[in-house]
Amino acid sequence: MAEKQAFFESELVKDFNNKIEKDHLGPLWSAIPELVSKEPKPLAVPYLWKWATLKEYLLEAKEIFTPERGGERRAIYLQNPGLKEREPWGWGAATQNLYAAVQLILPGEEAPSHRHTQSALRFIMDGEGAYSVINGERMFMNEGDFVVTPQGMWHGHGHEGTEPMFWMDVLDIPFVYATGGTFFEGHPDGLEKATHPDNYSSKQYQGGLVRPKADRQPKKAPVGAYTWAQTESALNGMMEYEPDAYDGYTVEFINPSTGKTANANIAAWMQRLPKGFHSQAHRHTNSSIYYVHEGRGYSVIDGVKFEWEKGDFFIIPSWCWHEHVNLEDGHSHLFSVHDTPIMENFSWQREEEADHKQAIKKTFQPYG
Amino acid sequence: MAEKQAFFESELVKDFNNKIEKDHLGPLWSAIPELVSKEPKPLAVPYLWKWATLKEYLLEAKEIFTPERGGERRAIYLQNPGLKEREPWGWGAATQNLYAAVQLILPGEEAPSHRHTQSALRFIMDGEGAYSVINGERMFMNEGDFVVTPQGMWHGHGHEGTEPMFWMDVLDIPFVYATGGTFFEGHPDGLEKATHPDNYSSKQYQGGLVRPKADRQPKKAPVGAYTWAQTESALNGMMEYEPDAYDGYTVEFINPSTGKTANANIAAWMQRLPKGFHSQAHRHTNSSIYYVHEGRGYSVIDGVKFEWEKGDFFIIPSWCWHEHVNLEDGHSHLFSVHDTPIMENFSWQREEEADHKQAIKKTFQPYG
Amino acid sequence: MAEKQAFFESELVKDFNNKIEKDHLGPLWSAIPELVSKEPKPLAVPYLWKWATLKEYLLEAKEIFTPERGGERRAIYLQNPGLKEREPWGWGAATQNLYAAVQLILPGEEAPSHRHTQSALRFIMDGEGAYSVINGERMFMNEGDFVVTPQGMWHGHGHEGTEPMFWMDVLDIPFVYATGGTFFEGHPDGLEKATHPDNYSSKQYQGGLVRPKADRQPKKAPVGAYTWAQTESALNGMMEYEPDAYDGYTVEFINPSTGKTANANIAAWMQRLPKGFHSQAHRHTNSSIYYVHEGRGYSVIDGVKFEWEKGDFFIIPSWCWHEHVNLEDGHSHLFSVHDTPIMENFSWQREEEADHKQAIKKTFQPYG
Amino acid sequence: MAEKQAFFESELVKDFNNKIEKDHLGPLWSAIPELVSKEPKPLAVPYLWKWATLKEYLLEAKEIFTPERGGERRAIYLQNPGLKEREPWGWGAATQNLYAAVQLILPGEEAPSHRHTQSALRFIMDGEGAYSVINGERMFMNEGDFVVTPQGMWHGHGHEGTEPMFWMDVLDIPFVYATGGTFFEGHPDGLEKATHPDNYSSKQYQGGLVRPKADRQPKKAPVGAYTWAQTESALNGMMEYEPDAYDGYTVEFINPSTGKTANANIAAWMQRLPKGFHSQAHRHTNSSIYYVHEGRGYSVIDGVKFEWEKGDFFIIPSWCWHEHVNLEDGHSHLFSVHDTPIMENFSWQREEEADHKQAIKKTFQPYG
Ligand SMILES: [Fe+2]
Ligand SMILES: [Fe+2]
Ligand SMILES: [Fe+2]
Ligand SMILES: [Fe+2]
Ligand SMILES: [Fe+2]
Ligand SMILES: [Fe+2]
Ligand SMILES: [Fe+2]
Ligand SMILES: [Fe+2]
Repeated sequence: MAEKQAFFESELVKDFNNKIEKDHLGPLWSAIPELVSKEPKPLAVPYLWKWATLKEYLLEAKEIFTPERGGERRAIYLQNPGLKEREPWGWGAATQNLYAAVQLILPGEEAPSHRHTQSALRFIMDGEGAYSVINGERMFMNEGDFVVTPQGMWHGHGHEGTEPMFWMDVLDIPFVYATGGTFFEGHPDGLEKATHPDNYSSKQYQGGLVRPKADRQPKKAPVGAYTWAQTESALNGMMEYEPDAYDGYTVEFINPSTGKTANANIAAWMQRLPKGFHSQAHRHTNSSIYYVHEGRGYSVIDGVKFEWEKGDFFIIPSWCWHEHVNLEDGHSHLFSVHDTPIMENFSWQREEEADHKQAIKKTFQPYG
Repeated sequence: MAEKQAFFESELVKDFNNKIEKDHLGPLWSAIPELVSKEPKPLAVPYLWKWATLKEYLLEAKEIFTPERGGERRAIYLQNPGLKEREPWGWGAATQNLYAAVQLILPGEEAPSHRHTQSALRFIMDGEGAYSVINGERMFMNEGDFVVTPQGMWHGHGHEGTEPMFWMDVLDIPFVYATGGTFFEGHPDGLEKATHPDNYSSKQYQGGLVRPKADRQPKKAPVGAYTWAQTESALNGMMEYEPDAYDGYTVEFINPSTGKTANANIAAWMQRLPKGFHSQAHRHTNSSIYYVHEGRGYSVIDGVKFEWEKGDFFIIPSWCWHEHVNLEDGHSHLFSVHDTPIMENFSWQREEEADHKQAIKKTFQPYG
Repeated sequence: MAEKQAFFESELVKDFNNKIEKDHLGPLWSAIPELVSKEPKPLAVPYLWKWATLKEYLLEAKEIFTPERGGERRAIYLQNPGLKEREPWGWGAATQNLYAAVQLILPGEEAPSHRHTQSALRFIMDGEGAYSVINGERMFMNEGDFVVTPQGMWHGHGHEGTEPMFWMDVLDIPFVYATGGTFFEGHPDGLEKATHPDNYSSKQYQGGLVRPKADRQPKKAPVGAYTWAQTESALNGMMEYEPDAYDGYTVEFINPSTGKTANANIAAWMQRLPKGFHSQAHRHTNSSIYYVHEGRGYSVIDGVKFEWEKGDFFIIPSWCWHEHVNLEDGHSHLFSVHDTPIMENFSWQREEEADHKQAIKKTFQPYG
Repeated sequence: MAEKQAFFESELVKDFNNKIEKDHLGPLWSAIPELVSKEPKPLAVPYLWKWATLKEYLLEAKEIFTPERGGERRAIYLQNPGLKEREPWGWGAATQNLYAAVQLILPGEEAPSHRHTQSALRFIMDGEGAYSVINGERMFMNEGDFVVTPQGMWHGHGHEGTEPMFWMDVLDIPFVYATGGTFFEGHPDGLEKATHPDNYSSKQYQGGLVRPKADRQPKKAPVGAYTWAQTESALNGMMEYEPDAYDGYTVEFINPSTGKTANANIAAWMQRLPKGFHSQAHRHTNSSIYYVHEGRGYSVIDGVKFEWEKGDFFIIPSWCWHEHVNLEDGHSHLFSVHDTPIMENFSWQREEEADHKQAIKKTFQPYG
């Protein structure tokens, strides 16, 4: 082994490798251990952003970036420090495949409609009275609600409320960037006019597992806002039973015409960690972005303690051991998104469960 | 044409046909017009059964047929008069492919568990306190609730209430009989013992379009009782908008892990006909069985008026023109089942819409 | 048990059953054992037809039934004696779900084009120079070739050769009849004119497991004639290895754009039984129709010996034990069709393997 | 527009962007035009490598890199100059998603068996007598043959011939690297021992579109070597008809149990450009790697002329206009691979056809 190592570090090999590289050729023998590694070694790192920081920047941005002055959206995205070197713009990557941002919209503002290859979903963090126009329908969104805009659908935003409104945007921007095929188009009318009654889709689905006759065929159309009231009711319905050892009480947002995740490429969950809950550790190939909807606690990721409270965001990269602990005197609620559908599409989803909790080696500090 | 007809009715042809029939051979030239007809000509006929008749018979059966004395279920099925000649037992056919019956269970009775190739679903007509045990879970069922037991699942019934209870059973018995592959097995324990908490599945789904993490993979497991409260809420959510021209406000019960119908072979709907509603006429290859959950009105099927009120059942065979009229001073609610999933499985589903209402030629009278 | 039996045969039960039958209602307690049987008990029976008989009748039919005089096809179908009582025309059923016939076409004759819900496939028994026109392409067919015309495709036939030509037609007529949804349409031009070069499809596929770029998307279009030369070559390629214990060397005709059976509802096989081969016994839910393409031998079906030779047809109904024996001094070749795709579509396919050969109780004789 | 540009280049914006970047946050307003571009702007560039160069390096590598001394495979890969900055090792990327290399194996050498998440396929460039051991079966490979080793299958190589042997390897290494989920495992026995007869799979499939009974269920198993003789026969079968305007006569290698591409993530084609053929121009979202199996000619890619001859490799990145011209006095044969299945998996496949040929702006020269 040492002999092999010595050979690969020899001048002979280096010279040869250098020589062929001039002709834009590469040496598999040297590259293979890193390119085809024995298990996932993501460049993405576990990280945590405080809501206080994000909010401060967004309020500052409020003055600088108006819809008139430029930029279609007033949004600040989470840039994973391990993926920063990717050109350009770190590919906007919070994890290997997903982008996440916080968007601020002010009363009366309008974010013009557009459509793109990238898929999106939103989780409403704070406020009420804003709406998305998706394929001609206004969907009003309030704190705790969840909304999807799948690939290729027209979408824009407006705000009829009286207070600033914050929400989380998640897209598959880095995945599309890596893989190819991006198309983008602005809507000719700016913010698309509504052609259906407001909240048409979500009202039709307010009764649960029954579906309007017209939605019989698989489609990617949204069901509008998945309201917090419904999500909470589902979690309440699970409380008499045992929580999942790794994720507590967890529900997934679905597309009722396909039985798949609400957004075809991005799974979205609401997790309830009951009082005193301390999960087992596990790891999986999919990466995750967490937003703390309510409560406080910490997660241990590869031996590092990440302390979180309402409004914070944190990242669990692929194949990192992790466990969640609730410190709230009641439930904590974590909203999270995952690139699981992509993994499953290629049979890459794997999971491993640990039989003991992790030793905590240190507590996370933001990078300097 | 007349010449052809004469030829086919000639002695020459008849003699030849008879001769080969003795060797168990058949003449395509004579058989093809009936076997491969230009459009569906179902032997099934439109029909209607009054609840009063059914109830009277079931109450009489109550004394005669007890679980001890024999017969696993106290159920009387709808026998389509057009399909009666099918041997044996008219194949239990209400329509070409579906069986429907009313089952009566008394307080304290138990219907032992079994499983079979045939798929089932139930709609609770009257009463409360009965339950189905499906794959080890007791699902309590009350008036207006809907329950499925897909192919191959253990199921039995019990009743902890104080009054007789009636429900509608629908199975794909005639379809399985025609096509082959029936298997049936009794449970070794009689009525299976519950191994999960009561109503486990349905409570988990009470929040609507979110799904427990554990149900991510497609499965045919039921979500328990789809409650009337949820179904009604969905219908209420649709009321601000225009009803479907043919079916009013209609929701379909779904399997949230696949996005398909709750029972893979049988579609089930709840239809609300608002006050004054008179639908357009249409026809389709799927057949339908209707149960009047609430209200009164009539349906016109191929020019015949079928008057219905709460508790009645009626049949719309394949490819018959039909329209529905509500006469209630409020909503009428129709529960219905359809062999649409079978049709769609083979790309046989077709629909045709009429541009005018039908002339009524007569009013239905039960066959003598 | 005897007590139960006595109860069900009592006047009390009979009277009640008779009473409700008058109102077109049925007693589940009495009907269930036959309608939902413990395992398949097909009404279809094992049967065998001699080629000599079929040929004699077809040659006689040659004079009587001409394209001019009527009947679109000169074909005699196999009528399973167990399914004869089905009205009308025994549903043309050779097995529960499939129809099989022998068609005779004379030099210069034309069978006009039509299309229908029913799917078809053909195996060429004898002769050369005939063709099918399928979706505007002439596909010439010679002895041993296999051709499909899936649901909804225009098809007609012509014959440019000099001798009478015989082929086997297989359709899913009884299945469509039972289930519903039949549509039929004649072509406005009689025999459709060819708009593509002759044998276009099959020439493109002559190289095996490579597919023209243009056929990338799933389609039901035929690949034309699957020639005997190709089928034989595949069987030759398997000869160094062990035969399947139940079916010898067996290949299945496929649709290269879907990887499924060439005809979506009907599986078709060519089986080679090598010299001295005597298979193990097994049974399965799918039914089978066999045509002896070459050789002689016998099959044991539920203990009855069916002796066959070139040109004969025989039936193995659902769930009957069966084994095949080759008596030829060389290979025997059996062409066969199966309703397996239908069974698999509903998860009804089951198979059971026996650990010993069957005792022969008697030898088949045609029914009187 | 200019005003917007000025704003985004202002100190105000730059300062703000810099400030948030320190907290590992990113400004969507600045990043969005590049991350979500209006149409694909691949970093990958069109490029061409001469066989003479590759061969010279491989023969030199022959002395340096032996199986004993290290490196599991003696392979030199094509490094797209536009993707070289990706860390590490340029991700081994010939195109956005695919890796391609030439491997040299000497008589008597053995490349040990391993398995990995990445999928592979091979095209045999020169020589005979080598084999791959795939899931326990030796598949001998000769010039012009095509072999697949899907995700997760054990594979290793040996060589029983007498001359050095060259083949092209294609894997989805960059795609897996970007997306995550890589696992790799060495076989405990070094080169896996054969447990099936040699060439078992391919012999069974030598007859074309018939499939062994045992392969009825979808699987990813290879059919062994897809021989040049079969591929050529398919191309010959197409010659009477018109070539495709963009790709000449083209066949795709398929998996006969699924009807999909032979390798689930990578499409592979053999294209015949007949004498005098000059294609129309088109572009598509999928990227392509071409290997010149026979002949000479040139391709015009985004206005640049790439001259090729037998043994050369060239790249067509996503969304670049391209057309192919044959200069051989006979057929040219191009083998090519495409990430189309990945594009199609996410509905990203788009194609655009030009109505005129491109103007040639210059002729390609290798980068210095
Ligand atoms: Fe957007
Ligand atoms: Fe996790
Ligand atoms: Fe049952
Ligand atoms: Fe209808
Ligand atoms: Fe036909
Ligand atoms: Fe069999
Ligand atoms: Fe490998
Ligand atoms: Fe192209």
